[in-house]
Amino acid sequence: MTFQDEALPREKTFRDPILGTIIVDNQIILDLINTPEFQRLRRIKQLGTSSLTFHGAEHSRFGHCLGVYEIARRMCNHFQRNYPTHHPGDGLWDDSERPVALCAALLHDLGHGPYSHTFEHIFHTDHEEITRRLITSPTTNIQRILARVAPDLPAQVASVIDHTYHNQQVVQMISSQVDADRMDYLQRDAYYTGTNYGKFDLDRVLSVMRPIQGGIAFEISGMHAVEDYIISRLQMYLQIYFHPVSRSMEVILDHLLKRAKYLYQHPTDYQPTFTPYMLMPFFNNRFTLDDYLSLDDGVLSTYFIHWTKSEDDILADLARRFLNRRPFKSALYDNQTGAMLEKLTDLIATAGFNAEYYTATNSSYKLPYDTYHPQSSKPQSQIELIQPNGELVELTEVSTLVAAIAGRQAGDERFFFPKEMLAEHDNIEIFEPIYQEFQHYISNNHIIIPD
Amino acid sequence: MTFQDEALPREKTFRDPILGTIIVDNQIILDLINTPEFQRLRRIKQLGTSSLTFHGAEHSRFGHCLGVYEIARRMCNHFQRNYPTHHPGDGLWDDSERPVALCAALLHDLGHGPYSHTFEHIFHTDHEEITRRLITSPTTNIQRILARVAPDLPAQVASVIDHTYHNQQVVQMISSQVDADRMDYLQRDAYYTGTNYGKFDLDRVLSVMRPIQGGIAFEISGMHAVEDYIISRLQMYLQIYFHPVSRSMEVILDHLLKRAKYLYQHPTDYQPTFTPYMLMPFFNNRFTLDDYLSLDDGVLSTYFIHWTKSEDDILADLARRFLNRRPFKSALYDNQTGAMLEKLTDLIATAGFNAEYYTATNSSYKLPYDTYHPQSSKPQSQIELIQPNGELVELTEVSTLVAAIAGRQAGDERFFFPKEMLAEHDNIEIFEPIYQEFQHYISNNHIIIPD
Amino acid sequence: MTFQDEALPREKTFRDPILGTIIVDNQIILDLINTPEFQRLRRIKQLGTSSLTFHGAEHSRFGHCLGVYEIARRMCNHFQRNYPTHHPGDGLWDDSERPVALCAALLHDLGHGPYSHTFEHIFHTDHEEITRRLITSPTTNIQRILARVAPDLPAQVASVIDHTYHNQQVVQMISSQVDADRMDYLQRDAYYTGTNYGKFDLDRVLSVMRPIQGGIAFEISGMHAVEDYIISRLQMYLQIYFHPVSRSMEVILDHLLKRAKYLYQHPTDYQPTFTPYMLMPFFNNRFTLDDYLSLDDGVLSTYFIHWTKSEDDILADLARRFLNRRPFKSALYDNQTGAMLEKLTDLIATAGFNAEYYTATNSSYKLPYDTYHPQSSKPQSQIELIQPNGELVELTEVSTLVAAIAGRQAGDERFFFPKEMLAEHDNIEIFEPIYQEFQHYISNNHIIIPD
Amino acid sequence: MTFQDEALPREKTFRDPILGTIIVDNQIILDLINTPEFQRLRRIKQLGTSSLTFHGAEHSRFGHCLGVYEIARRMCNHFQRNYPTHHPGDGLWDDSERPVALCAALLHDLGHGPYSHTFEHIFHTDHEEITRRLITSPTTNIQRILARVAPDLPAQVASVIDHTYHNQQVVQMISSQVDADRMDYLQRDAYYTGTNYGKFDLDRVLSVMRPIQGGIAFEISGMHAVEDYIISRLQMYLQIYFHPVSRSMEVILDHLLKRAKYLYQHPTDYQPTFTPYMLMPFFNNRFTLDDYLSLDDGVLSTYFIHWTKSEDDILADLARRFLNRRPFKSALYDNQTGAMLEKLTDLIATAGFNAEYYTATNSSYKLPYDTYHPQSSKPQSQIELIQPNGELVELTEVSTLVAAIAGRQAGDERFFFPKEMLAEHDNIEIFEPIYQEFQHYISNNHIIIPD
Ligand code: NI
Ligand code: NI
Ligand code: NI
Ligand code: NI
Repeated sequence: MTFQDEALPREKTFRDPILGTIIVDNQIILDLINTPEFQRLRRIKQLGTSSLTFHGAEHSRFGHCLGVYEIARRMCNHFQRNYPTHHPGDGLWDDSERPVALCAALLHDLGHGPYSHTFEHIFHTDHEEITRRLITSPTTNIQRILARVAPDLPAQVASVIDHTYHNQQVVQMISSQVDADRMDYLQRDAYYTGTNYGKFDLDRVLSVMRPIQGGIAFEISGMHAVEDYIISRLQMYLQIYFHPVSRSMEVILDHLLKRAKYLYQHPTDYQPTFTPYMLMPFFNNRFTLDDYLSLDDGVLSTYFIHWTKSEDDILADLARRFLNRRPFKSALYDNQTGAMLEKLTDLIATAGFNAEYYTATNSSYKLPYDTYHPQSSKPQSQIELIQPNGELVELTEVSTLVAAIAGRQAGDERFFFPKEMLAEHDNIEIFEPIYQEFQHYISNNHIIIPD
Repeated sequence: MTFQDEALPREKTFRDPILGTIIVDNQIILDLINTPEFQRLRRIKQLGTSSLTFHGAEHSRFGHCLGVYEIARRMCNHFQRNYPTHHPGDGLWDDSERPVALCAALLHDLGHGPYSHTFEHIFHTDHEEITRRLITSPTTNIQRILARVAPDLPAQVASVIDHTYHNQQVVQMISSQVDADRMDYLQRDAYYTGTNYGKFDLDRVLSVMRPIQGGIAFEISGMHAVEDYIISRLQMYLQIYFHPVSRSMEVILDHLLKRAKYLYQHPTDYQPTFTPYMLMPFFNNRFTLDDYLSLDDGVLSTYFIHWTKSEDDILADLARRFLNRRPFKSALYDNQTGAMLEKLTDLIATAGFNAEYYTATNSSYKLPYDTYHPQSSKPQSQIELIQPNGELVELTEVSTLVAAIAGRQAGDERFFFPKEMLAEHDNIEIFEPIYQEFQHYISNNHIIIPD
Repeated sequence: MTFQDEALPREKTFRDPILGTIIVDNQIILDLINTPEFQRLRRIKQLGTSSLTFHGAEHSRFGHCLGVYEIARRMCNHFQRNYPTHHPGDGLWDDSERPVALCAALLHDLGHGPYSHTFEHIFHTDHEEITRRLITSPTTNIQRILARVAPDLPAQVASVIDHTYHNQQVVQMISSQVDADRMDYLQRDAYYTGTNYGKFDLDRVLSVMRPIQGGIAFEISGMHAVEDYIISRLQMYLQIYFHPVSRSMEVILDHLLKRAKYLYQHPTDYQPTFTPYMLMPFFNNRFTLDDYLSLDDGVLSTYFIHWTKSEDDILADLARRFLNRRPFKSALYDNQTGAMLEKLTDLIATAGFNAEYYTATNSSYKLPYDTYHPQSSKPQSQIELIQPNGELVELTEVSTLVAAIAGRQAGDERFFFPKEMLAEHDNIEIFEPIYQEFQHYISNNHIIIPD
Repeated sequence: MTFQDEALPREKTFRDPILGTIIVDNQIILDLINTPEFQRLRRIKQLGTSSLTFHGAEHSRFGHCLGVYEIARRMCNHFQRNYPTHHPGDGLWDDSERPVALCAALLHDLGHGPYSHTFEHIFHTDHEEITRRLITSPTTNIQRILARVAPDLPAQVASVIDHTYHNQQVVQMISSQVDADRMDYLQRDAYYTGTNYGKFDLDRVLSVMRPIQGGIAFEISGMHAVEDYIISRLQMYLQIYFHPVSRSMEVILDHLLKRAKYLYQHPTDYQPTFTPYMLMPFFNNRFTLDDYLSLDDGVLSTYFIHWTKSEDDILADLARRFLNRRPFKSALYDNQTGAMLEKLTDLIATAGFNAEYYTATNSSYKLPYDTYHPQSSKPQSQIELIQPNGELVELTEVSTLVAAIAGRQAGDERFFFPKEMLAEHDNIEIFEPIYQEFQHYISNNHIIIPD
């Protein structure tokens, strides 16, 4: 049975706040959406702790995945209408790639768990590997549905997500500097945070995309639309994704999970009165795909609620800080002022905080635009523009705006610490002299080297 | 210390996707927002099961409460600029009511728990009573903060939410046919669902509001804006809040909780291997405010995940249907065709479903606009328009549009049943003849009386 | 040469604020847009005097016509994807109708002149007839381009606009209660006025449209979207199109043109020092298509500027009132209070105003939804919904909302008069007693019968 | 009578698509809006020929001026709430500056005429000088209304527009790198063109503005919002204001007016059959304020329509190209390839075009962000950020994004020529060999130096 055989007689639509209408016109896509594996994405926030900074941004990965599918679908339609292949190898679009492209788009984030970044840091899981397993393991509903079309479809879909699929047009559709994934999340996250930063002209960017030999390029007449997208992406990083309060809450989450892991791994020191069953396989470094699929944001926060009553002060305090949104404060530092970190950490310890759990450093850097570095571990395809005579030109060669920012790292390095350290001077507390000393090292949100 | 003493030297803003900017300029408001009681609202979805129909609508009660506060703040500003009182009893706006109004707006939904409507149905809790207790009980952070301003502020704020506060302008600001609550949620729910239905011209409605003796009225020049609001509200009910799929998922949730309650209340019949600690006080009809505050959407869904592996088939199946979004189907019926329900229920039982848990009826009716009925248990203030000469006229007397729909119930009555009952005929299953018989009673989504 | 032969190898796009992207993929459409006849629509405002009430609404008929084309194009795509004909007469969509449909959509308003309604009232022109002539007359660029496809295409396109084309699906696409024309202008006018009233879910309405034998119907699952459209349309009429200030400015325009026509037709009484060359053919009731095509909003306002310096006081004063936006005031009346009009008109004349030019009555009524009246001069197709079993049901039979408003006229009747008649009493003027008497007959913006 | 005495008892609102609601609460502002001088702005397009590229952008200067007023009003409110002066000279906001600020904001573009840039180029008028005269000349309605408040208010308002007013906070509110003028037009032009480029977070930028000694600065916490504004501004220039088609239409307009001026100034060579009365004072270099006020877009286009029938071929042809939107084509050149311009111009002349009227060069450059250059003729205030300790820091010192683009010119240099020169080779025309030669010098939209 081919993909085309499963075409729905009538298109089915999902109302989407960002893309207007998401159109499903194939039973395979519909069946994938209705699996428990995919429905579970409703219970995992797209932006993790960012919703604690931008209260509107409580959306889940579910809508994002539908959105990436829809953008990929529009790309296929655009390519098929304007650049259909005439014979193999002509560098134009072969619409028989559509099933692989659409399924890969829909499933590209399937392996994400709750607060992925932090969770992976503490428990050494890997959402990309889990995505692959969910797609290719014969025990999953996903695999069974895909295999209905063709026995090798699961492997093909997984290889697109791995970037190893033979048709790089399909790969770049899902993963490149201007792909369906980024185009969806920038717009979606902008919509839900209520900011303008991530808005760019999706219709325009789609309309200037063009399949070429070995990938996707852009008509040069659409250069400004691509520029605008690059800038939007950079601004979303600087203003939303790197927001210090979100990173602070992530630090707290990280330390909270680290503390829990330590305590449950050392039961002789600590006899917990409560067992977080679903996390135990992870504390024990022995988890199955099913264990992983049982987790979601609500499971973690349920355990956090239990832990607020723990007899371990650190666990209880960090859980309360996380649930009640009491972020650490932070200060910027650089190579030079980083020398002060040890001193500051000492002061924090002296003030009674366990520095392992109550301090952290975190740097967030993003290359606004990346020209091709084949030696890099994950080389990003560069953005190529097509001139009227068919020749390609790399974006920074013609865009002064992108050239100006390319290669410059954007982001910052921060030191996180408890808000208590900034207590006002008129506050009568035993640690007041320590607080005052600490504050001598902070000025204008930066760590400084006092005279 | 008065409210004015706690004015912030500089306004603090929250970025809100719906209202643009939410301005907090008083420490009391900021402190209320930062309580654990209020932060908990981040973990309770505003629309419950509707997010399973409209995937964009995953927003929490937290943003809604900020929004109601902001709209009330704008009302106070508008009243104070345009209709300030000259002497007591002149029916104009007395800005010393601002603290009561703003706090009541912010806190009006504080007592909501997870999936309130269903939860209350099964466990006989009452979110309005809990709101009152959270505001007035001396053990809560909320009460302590309010009492900082004045000892009777907690009671006053609670009385606004109770509708018993002496100043009906304040009461109607928070609760009337055109109040800050409805004006926020209609717009907010429209934004997140991605529909236009709830959009009306908030600025315009606010600009034609006017304090009068005993309440709030509208300038007659703004009649169309008020009409538009009434219609928007009706459409949101018909198209979003009453959506059959959301109601179906609510039926499943209701039956799931009912089953759990039954099982945990009858431990002799059932030795559950898993104890949902946080729900036990509710199964046992003995819960404290703290027990209630521990609950949120994540806690419930965590237990549902556990229950998918229960040995009780019904509990496990309903949990899976809920988590994996497999709604019951439904058919419309009326007084006459309701006679068929018994027959249909029998067929469902014969097909192997426990009818108590696998069928339900549900009616959803809304009066689009209500003229004053003093004999009603919760009389709604009617909407009064002010003519140029100062005389009042009730909305339906001048709006042919509202007059046309006033008093007509809008909504429907539905019978819910497992989708399996609609199985296609070519499906080889043991129960096929029963399914076929069942389907004779359904046509065009209505229950019919076959010839 | 067929329409298909003129397909563009790559789609061309127009950025549109309302529809996002307008896609042109055929040379014929592009050539039609580039004719002087079509470009002239840029110089004619879509909403006439409404921009004097809603300052944002200065858009021209050009964008509207592109929009109607685009919506028709989307309808064709939807029909072709979901309901393609299998054999003639099966009531499904025959895509060979696409050229007629798209050209008719694009050209449906081609014959509009400046301030059409008023201009036609004074000069007895007929924009529909002119549209037909522009499409079918062998002297126009439009006709020549259409005839390139097929000799009878001009006549076919004209017959669609006339409603006489054999395929009623095409006719209803352009002209019916839910057609591309209305769907475009409601959204467009809402966008430019900055109101929400005209917003409905275009994507959703399009997705539930369905070709049937003899026309177009809607899937019953989309009933609410159709309801919402009907209500939006009604609200746009009540709140935008019938706004009393716009109608007042139209009264002034009407009287200004009437005065000019009178003066230029009676040159013995009046030797104008200025000749409005482009209007002379209309004053003389003898105009060619070219004369008509020379007119636009700017030509009229240029003459108005000249007339502000006319020696005829009435002409000069009305021209100034129009250009400087000084509307007449108005009062509502009904059958009963209409008896006062004669008295009021006398008072206005006594106060020194020529009543022929300084008073007017105007009624604006709209049937919110019209069930089929075959005896009416322009019978409107009613809205039919398709049930799951394929049977049709008329909208009011299932929509209580539309049933409630159907058949009720909405609108009002107004008497217009100079603002001076409402002069304040402390204003010392010779006519003050007359003003005072006049004001006895007006209360709350209504004409009244004093005791 | 003071400004405060003219406060309206109730605020009056204008519905605005961009800003939502524009609030007028003072009779002076209302009276200024109602003058013929201000109403005339309704008849002058904000973006001139850009509406021929972006069909949605047909808005007038009227809405823009209301918008600038509204943004200035919000700035005053923000300053007065958060930074009210305590004593003269403390660098905080003195709300007695409000009348000057609001009137200057409203009137800042009052002197604009039709297609100002081009008109001024041909007729040597100066819209800034005319603005001043309209505000200060005792014969205007504007002056009379302003003088009602205080005899020196007209001069003060004019001095704000001149940048010479003593309070630089007021000056910078109306004219600086981040002023009410730019903030309005970027958003407004983005809305009407239907692009995202000009969208930035107005509320956020306003909320971080702060009066300082000698001007206005921004809280450093709002740096990203200011960055976003700078980028938006740059993108609007590159993508909207510098669009080659709009510039091409401006070239045609320029040449059309130049040709008309030449012909009417040389009546011996040319006996025109039609006299454009309203332009004659400008052809004769002798015009009054009243002559200037009579002009608008419609007057010019009316004359263009007449000229399409002129016996002068160049005048008639250019008029038709303008009215029917037939832009010249263009090619980019630089210092080196500019050497080819003479050759290209010769070819165009050989092909039968009068090169004076059928070719042009045009460069459009914009400094994305300008640090302070006191030696420049119009030094732009640089953007200063305020750190927590009160110290100022210039934007490029902390924003790597703005630093990257500051000082780089953005824009291009183009050569314009008739589209006929690009005629396809299979087109049989007498000039075909010349066209072919011409095309050898053009590649990828650039002028090249052939081998
Ligand atoms: Ni993704
Ligand atoms: Ni509420
Ligand atoms: Ni139309
Ligand atoms: Ni301006």
